[in-house]
Amino acid sequence: MRMYDLILKKRKGEALTKEEIYFFIEGYTKGSIPDYQVSALLMAVYFQKMNKEETVYLTEAMMHSGEVIDLSSIEGIKVDKHSTGGVGDKTTIALAPIAAACGIPVAKMSGRGLGHTGGTIDKLESIPGFCVEMTKETFIQNVNVMKLAIAGQTANLTPADKKLYALRDVTATVDNISLIASSIMSKKLASGADAIVLDVKTGSGAFMQDIDEAFLLAKEMVDIGNRVGRETVAIVTDMNQPLGYAIGNSLEVKEAVQLLKGEGPKDLEKLCITLGAHMLLLGKKVGTEYEGKRMAKAAIDSGEALNVLKNFVKQQNGQIDCIENLDLLPKTKEVYSLKADKRGYIHKIQGDIVGASALTLGAGRDTKDSKIDLSVGILLNKKMGDYVETGEVLAYIHYNDENRRDLAIEQLLKAYEIEDEAPEHRPLIFGVVTKNGIQRI
Amino acid sequence: MRMYDLILKKRKGEALTKEEIYFFIEGYTKGSIPDYQVSALLMAVYFQKMNKEETVYLTEAMMHSGEVIDLSSIEGIKVDKHSTGGVGDKTTIALAPIAAACGIPVAKMSGRGLGHTGGTIDKLESIPGFCVEMTKETFIQNVNVMKLAIAGQTANLTPADKKLYALRDVTATVDNISLIASSIMSKKLASGADAIVLDVKTGSGAFMQDIDEAFLLAKEMVDIGNRVGRETVAIVTDMNQPLGYAIGNSLEVKEAVQLLKGEGPKDLEKLCITLGAHMLLLGKKVGTEYEGKRMAKAAIDSGEALNVLKNFVKQQNGQIDCIENLDLLPKTKEVYSLKADKRGYIHKIQGDIVGASALTLGAGRDTKDSKIDLSVGILLNKKMGDYVETGEVLAYIHYNDENRRDLAIEQLLKAYEIEDEAPEHRPLIFGVVTKNGIQRI
Repeated sequence: MRMYDLILKKRKGEALTKEEIYFFIEGYTKGSIPDYQVSALLMAVYFQKMNKEETVYLTEAMMHSGEVIDLSSIEGIKVDKHSTGGVGDKTTIALAPIAAACGIPVAKMSGRGLGHTGGTIDKLESIPGFCVEMTKETFIQNVNVMKLAIAGQTANLTPADKKLYALRDVTATVDNISLIASSIMSKKLASGADAIVLDVKTGSGAFMQDIDEAFLLAKEMVDIGNRVGRETVAIVTDMNQPLGYAIGNSLEVKEAVQLLKGEGPKDLEKLCITLGAHMLLLGKKVGTEYEGKRMAKAAIDSGEALNVLKNFVKQQNGQIDCIENLDLLPKTKEVYSLKADKRGYIHKIQGDIVGASALTLGAGRDTKDSKIDLSVGILLNKKMGDYVETGEVLAYIHYNDENRRDLAIEQLLKAYEIEDEAPEHRPLIFGVVTKNGIQRI
Repeated sequence: MRMYDLILKKRKGEALTKEEIYFFIEGYTKGSIPDYQVSALLMAVYFQKMNKEETVYLTEAMMHSGEVIDLSSIEGIKVDKHSTGGVGDKTTIALAPIAAACGIPVAKMSGRGLGHTGGTIDKLESIPGFCVEMTKETFIQNVNVMKLAIAGQTANLTPADKKLYALRDVTATVDNISLIASSIMSKKLASGADAIVLDVKTGSGAFMQDIDEAFLLAKEMVDIGNRVGRETVAIVTDMNQPLGYAIGNSLEVKEAVQLLKGEGPKDLEKLCITLGAHMLLLGKKVGTEYEGKRMAKAAIDSGEALNVLKNFVKQQNGQIDCIENLDLLPKTKEVYSLKADKRGYIHKIQGDIVGASALTLGAGRDTKDSKIDLSVGILLNKKMGDYVETGEVLAYIHYNDENRRDLAIEQLLKAYEIEDEAPEHRPLIFGVVTKNGIQRI
């Protein structure tokens, strides 16, 4: 078999076989197939697409390119949640304890953030002492005992995807639905969960800006998951403005904990309860979404989810008093109040710009080796649809460096659009995709 | 400027600017742009095409990526001839002396062969002592004195094209008309001629198997040449069977010299006279193609062209007695007669298979470093349309190694199709493309 023939075949619009896709992925992983042939194939895939079978083979080949985590020694149906990434998305920190409190074993491997979207692990590390390094045995034991553990991703998870993604990133071959779906799903499948709930974000702060494309991606991933025998559902949700009010590591942890204390923002709570309901459905703890929502809400109201979070933080060496007293989390020296220079209704808080502004403050990584400042970030005071008076505070900028603050302000102002008329309401949840089809709300 | 943006732009089907194309070619030549980005761009070009302006910019950028030969110290209009390559194509060896005898200065840089088509320089080197290495001063002086010199290509001619071609070859991005045309024309333009006659081959032994595509390629190259101010015409000619009877280095030299002695095969003579007529037209030695053909024919009949060849061989250290007595050229120890196993009309002598068979005998290079055997080859005894009796000789196989001979026979037999009915006549010359348009015959 020769890589040249695979490129030619795909260029002509023919489907690659399972053997050909495994040949390509295995050869690329071990270095016998060079980057320049792979990028030519990727561009041919961009133009000629991959069918469902090819996409499933690609996912499986990438999944098996490295370590595949075995969670079989954990009792119960392990349900994982994955978000395609957004600004201010601290969902996991609140949702994982909710699901665990309802009896779902949550054995999560999480990544660090790169670019304007932060990673769950970075956020959790703003709790002093919190540690994601542990042996596999400890990880599994923690899940069996407390239903919840979050570890860093092993270095050898889906190496093919890592190489491919880096190559796609510099060859303008990122935006193909098969390549995106297989990249996400290969990692999820290698992480070993029995069932998967996907939160597919759409809007200005998300990778998929168009709602229809978000549904296509959701459908593709749900199909892949179900074809390989892991029940998968996807919720398509709004990321046209940041989720909640907080953007930045310790600010987001604070907001997630506030949610578990019953004081969280409504949008974040609604999202957590909806995603939680689907986790409970897949984990067979409830029979309907409605029941699932009630059970998830009860886990918050009873304080059970907060208790799980505390035990989990303690187990992973985090300082528990930071959860009890949120003022003990890392804080900046200064806070700047960004005020509205006109009155009106907020029509837009463009997510990617807010994310870039937080990155400027130091909340994220420019490159893999950047050091991040866990305390900085942006706390919105108003959200889309809110009315502001001239001089009223739009957002609080938590900063440690005046130069960075000034740059961040300059960026952040561009995220806003304020108009005389109230904007149309945009829903938080656009629909659900299951193996039975797409249900738009 | 970033290569990423160029890939994205072309992927979307937009035209690249002159600055962008120069940025890409200069960066690739000096190594600051990696192969994997270039192969992605090439595949995007395959799908989205390049317009005429882009193709001209690409040609010019590649032409200027290395040395550009200055022939201005040679008097007269320097006319170059280039063939897109075929099997048994010894045209240059006969045509260059014909044109020179008619007063056209021929300052030719030629390449060595790779794969099943031999290079003019390899063929000439079967004349003992013949040498293509000389200083630029000698090269120019030889042309000024005798109107003819043939040198090896300088190592630094169009390095961008060399890199690009090698990359296209392994990434299934060879067959795009803009990429093919710019590759050929960049080399021709860098070689410094004032005007160019292109022999675009079509048929089973040529790169362009389809006649219509051959005309498209011819048109593209003629347009490029004329846009950059070098008058260019192209003749589209048949390569559905080998040209003449001889395939193999010394066998081809012999056939070319025979032509100059008035004993050449009709197809080869017709091609040389047609190409010669267009060289004379571009060189302003005649006013019509008809006049040109008469003048070219007269150069053969008078022995003038043969005299030029002898002087040229002598000047470049070749043994002149090999030209006078062709039996002194390198010969094999053995000749095998390949006989017909059925009677009928020859419908097919598939050029690429004949070429591959000659390569098996040792007449060509498998890789750049292969050593070639100048004496081996195939001498056809019958051509398309000829009638053969069972047992009559189809071809003589000149060989030095029995194992190679047996493999070559096995291949060569597959080149033939013999049928009861006479085949339709296929013309040698399909048409002429000038700046005024396409004229099919």
